[in-house]
Amino acid sequence: MLGNFTYCNPTKLYFGEEALGGLDAELAKVGANVVLIYGGGSIKKSGLYDEVLGKLQRAGKNVAEISGVMPNPTLDKLYEGIEIARAHKADFLLAVGGGSVCDYAKAVAVSVHCDEDPWEKYFARFEEPDCEILPVGCVLTLAGTGSEMNAGSVITNTRTHQKVGHVFLDEMVMPRFAILNPRYTMTLPHYQMVAGIYDIFNHICEQYFSGTDDNTSDYIAEALMRSLIVSSRAANKNPQDYEARSNIMWTATWALNTLIAKGKSTDWMVHMLGQAVGAYTNATHGMTLAAVSLPYYRHIMPYGVAKFRRFAVNVWNVDAEGKTDEAVALEGLKAMEGWMRELGLAMNITELGATAEMIEKLADATFILKGGYKVLDRDEIVSIFKAAL
Amino acid sequence: MLGNFTYCNPTKLYFGEEALGGLDAELAKVGANVVLIYGGGSIKKSGLYDEVLGKLQRAGKNVAEISGVMPNPTLDKLYEGIEIARAHKADFLLAVGGGSVCDYAKAVAVSVHCDEDPWEKYFARFEEPDCEILPVGCVLTLAGTGSEMNAGSVITNTRTHQKVGHVFLDEMVMPRFAILNPRYTMTLPHYQMVAGIYDIFNHICEQYFSGTDDNTSDYIAEALMRSLIVSSRAANKNPQDYEARSNIMWTATWALNTLIAKGKSTDWMVHMLGQAVGAYTNATHGMTLAAVSLPYYRHIMPYGVAKFRRFAVNVWNVDAEGKTDEAVALEGLKAMEGWMRELGLAMNITELGATAEMIEKLADATFILKGGYKVLDRDEIVSIFKAAL
Repeated sequence: MLGNFTYCNPTKLYFGEEALGGLDAELAKVGANVVLIYGGGSIKKSGLYDEVLGKLQRAGKNVAEISGVMPNPTLDKLYEGIEIARAHKADFLLAVGGGSVCDYAKAVAVSVHCDEDPWEKYFARFEEPDCEILPVGCVLTLAGTGSEMNAGSVITNTRTHQKVGHVFLDEMVMPRFAILNPRYTMTLPHYQMVAGIYDIFNHICEQYFSGTDDNTSDYIAEALMRSLIVSSRAANKNPQDYEARSNIMWTATWALNTLIAKGKSTDWMVHMLGQAVGAYTNATHGMTLAAVSLPYYRHIMPYGVAKFRRFAVNVWNVDAEGKTDEAVALEGLKAMEGWMRELGLAMNITELGATAEMIEKLADATFILKGGYKVLDRDEIVSIFKAAL
Repeated sequence: MLGNFTYCNPTKLYFGEEALGGLDAELAKVGANVVLIYGGGSIKKSGLYDEVLGKLQRAGKNVAEISGVMPNPTLDKLYEGIEIARAHKADFLLAVGGGSVCDYAKAVAVSVHCDEDPWEKYFARFEEPDCEILPVGCVLTLAGTGSEMNAGSVITNTRTHQKVGHVFLDEMVMPRFAILNPRYTMTLPHYQMVAGIYDIFNHICEQYFSGTDDNTSDYIAEALMRSLIVSSRAANKNPQDYEARSNIMWTATWALNTLIAKGKSTDWMVHMLGQAVGAYTNATHGMTLAAVSLPYYRHIMPYGVAKFRRFAVNVWNVDAEGKTDEAVALEGLKAMEGWMRELGLAMNITELGATAEMIEKLADATFILKGGYKVLDRDEIVSIFKAAL
């Protein structure tokens, strides 16, 4: 744990099959004007909408709604939500859905009392809020993004073709509470479940594959990966396995709530590559990450061979005896590939709709970060995308 | 992650060599009347006292002091502190020291505005506070107890010969912030350093050696143990190794801030056995745990062989091939014993001053908990203490 850092994460988590019971106590702490935020309406089919609305009504709240929040929430949708929240004089925002709905609620929360344009302030200039921040609560229906316990928000500007994430420093942007009932995630189609699992795994990799010091955070990262490998295999075999789905949900939260990045550098280049693919194919986020991961990791492995060797041994139980570090490292990536194929993840960008003709544009759209084992140049990005075809 | 639970830990951590800088922002958030709480005066020798007092004065605080908080804070000392805090109309309590000072500050915090006797209410009836709780901040000078990020407090009643710990459920009992500068721990004598390291290790074991489900918390527990084994060996070789001391400090905090107990049962019998030894020998807490651990774990291993096998493989890298589960489990405990001897821990209760004649009294003083792999009866406790002689 080198360097100086702070850690603060006040989000209260209610976990388990009875987690929604925690909503009553939380509603008692907030004002009367509540905006309920959700996505495409799957919560109406599942009955969760009625349950939550019943609790809001019994708590005497005045409820307005923002519905139809899309998987990649747009700036226009954000403007719409700000107007609804302002007109309702919102005291509290309740997000019911996945990471997108939660991300969106946080963006509304920092914008309602902000005089400036939220895109310019938060997603172009990356400033911190200097206005009142509305409190957000979250009832999570899918595991993956970790948005339920962090201060991140991703908004897409369809005019400029930019999808921009901002991780706010102010812990008041984090949800005040999150309701985590693993049963809510069980109605998800298999494709979405495994895409979410890979999103979780890659969040951990992005924070793990950087730095050369001995750091407790890396040990915790390995633990989360080991747990996720076991529970993802069980869930892949039987999506109704509650124990597996609960471990996946808990791992997702801790994979991206700032803990495993403490005291160390991080990478995040797989997300940059994957988001470029997403921008041109509209493919599911977790699948874009899966499709570019192995070409990227095989490319940078020689620059961080000690860490990739450690990954092979500590995460994939590769027997290192009598082998070169590089051979062990490659065996680890091979084991990871095997697991990815088992789950049925996208193994190349072609199956997501990308073509050889797109590659220059994908490379243009890839933002280069500098925390990984090798700072990529444009030629390397092109060659990684080619290897990912 | 089976069952229902909540997680909430709002303590803000400032970590690193410049961590004390965070005190200024925190002091700005609290009222003017501050009680500074510390132990035997080592912070005066190190200069930390002057640094902290300077910050308090520059922040315009009115400072009263409670000094001389002992390693096992007594009820009489608690009564004294409550009077000082009441007379000072304290708005905020600043603990500067180790876990005892922090434990003590929390006990004062829940007692100042409490009309009842704090021993009766909190340490005999284990009730939650229903009065105003004073905010506590902590500048930590040794790594071990985890008190800086939890709601636990241990007080010793010298009249009834009881040392009682209460882990409050209300997260408002947790320190608002903790300053964690690994350099502050470097002046500690070797004996105290390794006792603290074993205290940390055993906190993890107590939460790990219970339950039979596949639980993410157990993977995180293994990660913390793996990190601690590496960093403790480095610190044992060179106590001035900042990286090692920083990993130890961070591991201590996460070993006992409720995270790794989430969704699972826990044991805590080593603490019950060790505290009985401590009550009759006044030996250092971590050393009493070390002296009884292996006899206890060897005794219960047959009842939880799968977990002890897992411990051997995942924590100690024991090669399991071709061996019975029990043989692997024993090899793990052997590896743990080797590490304990390396550090120079107490390996039996005789060297701590216990005698064969004391054993019946030690058994009487041992509180039996029911979360471990085997609920002990009195004969088993006697035989564990005999094996620990």
